[in-house]
Amino acid sequence: MFESAEIGHKIDKATYRREEPKLREALLDAQYDLGQKKRFATVIVIGGVDGAGKGETVNLLNEWMDPRHIMTSAFPGLSDEEMERPRMWRYWRALPPRGKIGILFGAWHNDPIMERARKRITAGELDHAITETVRFERMLTDEHILLLKIWLHLSKQQQKKRLNALRRDPATRWRVTDAEWEQYRHYDRLRKVSEYYLRQTNSAEAPWMVIEGADPEYRSLTVGRLLLAALRERLDDEPVARLPDKTPPLLPPIDKRNVLKALQLDQTMDREGYRRELEKWQGRLNLASRHPRFGRLAVVAVFEGNDAAGKGGAIRRVTQALDSRQYEGVSIAAPTEEERAQPYLWRFWRHVPRRGRFAIFDRSWYGRVLVERVEGYCSEADWMRAYSEINEFESQLAAHGVVVVKFWLATSKEEQLKRFREREKVPFKRFKITEEDWRNRKKWDAYERAVCDMVDLTSTTAVPWTLVEANNKYYARLKVLNTLTQAIERALKRARKK
Amino acid sequence: MFESAEIGHKIDKATYRREEPKLREALLDAQYDLGQKKRFATVIVIGGVDGAGKGETVNLLNEWMDPRHIMTSAFPGLSDEEMERPRMWRYWRALPPRGKIGILFGAWHNDPIMERARKRITAGELDHAITETVRFERMLTDEHILLLKIWLHLSKQQQKKRLNALRRDPATRWRVTDAEWEQYRHYDRLRKVSEYYLRQTNSAEAPWMVIEGADPEYRSLTVGRLLLAALRERLDDEPVARLPDKTPPLLPPIDKRNVLKALQLDQTMDREGYRRELEKWQGRLNLASRHPRFGRLAVVAVFEGNDAAGKGGAIRRVTQALDSRQYEGVSIAAPTEEERAQPYLWRFWRHVPRRGRFAIFDRSWYGRVLVERVEGYCSEADWMRAYSEINEFESQLAAHGVVVVKFWLATSKEEQLKRFREREKVPFKRFKITEEDWRNRKKWDAYERAVCDMVDLTSTTAVPWTLVEANNKYYARLKVLNTLTQAIERALKRARKK
Repeated sequence: MFESAEIGHKIDKATYRREEPKLREALLDAQYDLGQKKRFATVIVIGGVDGAGKGETVNLLNEWMDPRHIMTSAFPGLSDEEMERPRMWRYWRALPPRGKIGILFGAWHNDPIMERARKRITAGELDHAITETVRFERMLTDEHILLLKIWLHLSKQQQKKRLNALRRDPATRWRVTDAEWEQYRHYDRLRKVSEYYLRQTNSAEAPWMVIEGADPEYRSLTVGRLLLAALRERLDDEPVARLPDKTPPLLPPIDKRNVLKALQLDQTMDREGYRRELEKWQGRLNLASRHPRFGRLAVVAVFEGNDAAGKGGAIRRVTQALDSRQYEGVSIAAPTEEERAQPYLWRFWRHVPRRGRFAIFDRSWYGRVLVERVEGYCSEADWMRAYSEINEFESQLAAHGVVVVKFWLATSKEEQLKRFREREKVPFKRFKITEEDWRNRKKWDAYERAVCDMVDLTSTTAVPWTLVEANNKYYARLKVLNTLTQAIERALKRARKK
Repeated sequence: MFESAEIGHKIDKATYRREEPKLREALLDAQYDLGQKKRFATVIVIGGVDGAGKGETVNLLNEWMDPRHIMTSAFPGLSDEEMERPRMWRYWRALPPRGKIGILFGAWHNDPIMERARKRITAGELDHAITETVRFERMLTDEHILLLKIWLHLSKQQQKKRLNALRRDPATRWRVTDAEWEQYRHYDRLRKVSEYYLRQTNSAEAPWMVIEGADPEYRSLTVGRLLLAALRERLDDEPVARLPDKTPPLLPPIDKRNVLKALQLDQTMDREGYRRELEKWQGRLNLASRHPRFGRLAVVAVFEGNDAAGKGGAIRRVTQALDSRQYEGVSIAAPTEEERAQPYLWRFWRHVPRRGRFAIFDRSWYGRVLVERVEGYCSEADWMRAYSEINEFESQLAAHGVVVVKFWLATSKEEQLKRFREREKVPFKRFKITEEDWRNRKKWDAYERAVCDMVDLTSTTAVPWTLVEANNKYYARLKVLNTLTQAIERALKRARKK
């Protein structure tokens, strides 16, 4: 992969002086169009060999274009905020909204390559990181982000020469530390690992652009022209009206049975028993949440269900047991403008809790495969790929030690009607029932099918769905409480072993 | 993933008798349309738990539809033919052409799941197989194949019940062997590994369809309806004229340097020295090819180059050193009708050599990113994804112990002109020069750019490109011979260690 970047590319200074102003103007124009049309975001990943001009390139792009519409992020050591979240969280935070350019100085590729070169991770772990990367980048390009991955390369001799030159100059001496010389000593190994990584993460939608970094004029002009060509191509491209649908249909329902219909929705639980049990489980939950080892965990609890199934009531019974500084309640409605300018899962990633904390979602990322699917708010291709993206998201959470519990609160159609009528009658409950609820109710079967597909495709051993029979509110609340509590208790036990 | 397939789905026999004839007719219609339109091939993968009706389903589909247009393949133990090729070779062989249906009874998913459940491979190796699978399936769907992956499931209790029922019936007793009971004993572990594998290989384009296998009527009707719905959707879908191009442009050339221009094309080698060296290297190559350990290797040699660069001559100098029973010469021209009905790489996979043998390609799979790119015979999205597909193909070969050597024979534009003129003058060489050669020559710069991109994106440590300075034919032939010979000698050394 590095052949073309070791042959001594060079641009003479006169040519550079002539070309640079034209390029800058064109880049500014493109940046302006990008901001006006707001059709997509641009992510520029800068990676490569030390001394190949990564920092200079980042600075130059900020100089050439309007820096107010560029978000530049570097990823040195992990902050405590970052350490307490899954690996990819810091990169989600750095994504630019539609219309903007994000420059990522050393991104998700960096750690896996360096760690493998230092033999701190196995070949299998490297492959795992690669799989994660391939999925992440695919998600970005599926979300119409223009992803440009630039690798600045130097041959071994070039790197040595460059590091020596930097060291000799008093103005740049500070930039050559032991870390840079360590990289040089491991040049061959780093090269081998990088090549493998680059090849495995190369794709048509997000190819690596390997650029020789030795000559500053060549390097700068190449990066600039590349960015310009990519922006122009995408900006001038007429959006295609209808994307081809390559997804086969999901399983059609054949008999009358499904996971929802298989539930015994009417369960018995009287007020007396409920009070006793409630106290017991809230007590256990509170104890678990104050356990010394709880600081190593975090909890994400997702509440979904029919309209009027009692999500709010169940959530309150959970939060009553918690210290109010310990949890965030996240109520999901229509996305904000800022959220609409980002990939779908971005607005959920921002609420991923730190260690020792709860995030409680009243509705969630499952909106994509429920309401958005049924109401046609997104294309079939979009909600079909969401199942895999959601699984990837949740398994990254689980791998990081986050306890993820997901509840579907199910009532019968009759029970829902009863509750709707009740809400209309009681003045202080009236705000809870809208025209929309009545409209949704007419699509009961379509929603039912969407829920069954959701359970089939996103219930996993690590992150299972809990279906809650919710015709009896007491029963439902207790099932939520004891499922959640026991999941945390199991995780506390596992944490002991580590 | 298995929730919906453990709730006792059932269809009563009366309903089944009423629905079956309608379904069969509709399936036959769809199959007929598929064969007429020949727009895509259909691949049905059947996997799942033993006793869940995999075999019955395969038989039923053959019974319901016209078996003359169905290719059914099962994959029991490896044949010696298969053992001597990379793992995926047997599945490439089983792919149906456009217009046909291929039923794969236990496919590429089977071994990784079973081996991991038996702890014969590590978690890392399973992940590696998953990555390979994801790429392979993505290639299939990118090639417009309708890929349906069906998983027939039974709960633990259902499996036990089913195996006992089969054992009790004298007509089916033979089907329950120790292997089936072993599967049952490891049910929990198998379920866990399967779930992980299914989730990781699930995608919008090729989702897994998990179907409960206990009730034959339910199972059959579900599989049939699913196939029908998927076929109908794709058949009735109007093809979209223009696919959206999500690929950013490749690196634009900035200076006048590139890997081809960096070559010193004129090399000296006189007739005398050539004869001496030729004898020496042909001798060494012959020795290497008759080495006892050569039986553990295979060789794939690829020859690409400018028109009139001397590919044929170089190939002859190689084959002169070999036993003619030991190699296959593969000359790549326009694909046959049979080949056009398959994914792009299919026609190269069929020539992958067995162990102990050579396959020598005069032009190759690189046509996609050379002539097809330059002449616009395929879309940009198609040739852009080809780089990754080719890397995957070659790394599968290399991982299997195949020595892959790739030569680009480069002459200068002037030298080419000289040779064209010479060919026109000499009567017995005239067949070698056509109008097309002159036309290609006019696109010299476009081809040069395509070659440079090809080298950048497909030259890897394991499978590097060798650029051959070919203005002097003697020099070029010797460089080819000694590069090839030394690559084999190195592989023989490595084989000793194993």
